[in-house]
Amino acid sequence: MSVRRESNTEARGSSARARGLTHRHPSQVPLQDALDAVADPVRRTILRELAGQPDWTRACGTFDLPVSKATRSHHFAVLRAAGLIEQRDEGPRRFNRLRRAEFDRAFPGLLALVLAERA
Amino acid sequence: MSVRRESNTEARGSSARARGLTHRHPSQVPLQDALDAVADPVRRTILRELAGQPDWTRACGTFDLPVSKATRSHHFAVLRAAGLIEQRDEGPRRFNRLRRAEFDRAFPGLLALVLAERA
Repeated sequence: MSVRRESNTEARGSSARARGLTHRHPSQVPLQDALDAVADPVRRTILRELAGQPDWTRACGTFDLPVSKATRSHHFAVLRAAGLIEQRDEGPRRFNRLRRAEFDRAFPGLLALVLAERA
Repeated sequence: MSVRRESNTEARGSSARARGLTHRHPSQVPLQDALDAVADPVRRTILRELAGQPDWTRACGTFDLPVSKATRSHHFAVLRAAGLIEQRDEGPRRFNRLRRAEFDRAFPGLLALVLAERA
């Protein structure tokens, strides 16, 4: 399943954050957390899929992953805590953006290795 | 404890390999194995210490690590299998070399992140 959607979410993004989606900027992430985040193959799949599409066009539910819904949520939370993705809720959907530039500044080369991997 | 030793181990290195120390070139290492290897803080400590000294001057037993002898051996074996270090036996000692250049060619930036980490 692949649901894509164009959206203007600036205002809703603010309210989503106010509802409790916490983010961490990559510059605040310890190397251990960054490595743990990308050491999981399901999370690398998510990152590669996000990299291939425009920001904010992929909701969590649109990824075809071989895991339970709870595990899927956990993977996205780990990626958010590691500064790899930004998320915004729109109604029942949670949209994602890969924080490519800022993560690369904090951990030069690491995301490039992930995105270059043959899945 | 820190024991350093200058050695010329070219010939002995060959016999060490013949005795069964298997190595894997970084170009043959899957990204998963490389990430798993550096995701452990004890292994990153080993890599940083090796980076600060000349090749083949540090034996495994000279690292001050908060782990058992068996766990220590495991960590070195993981680093070797990930293409991060090369090892040679000399009598009772196993000496190490960081494969910095070749690992960096296979996984650009990854080792630099490890070595730049504040322990």
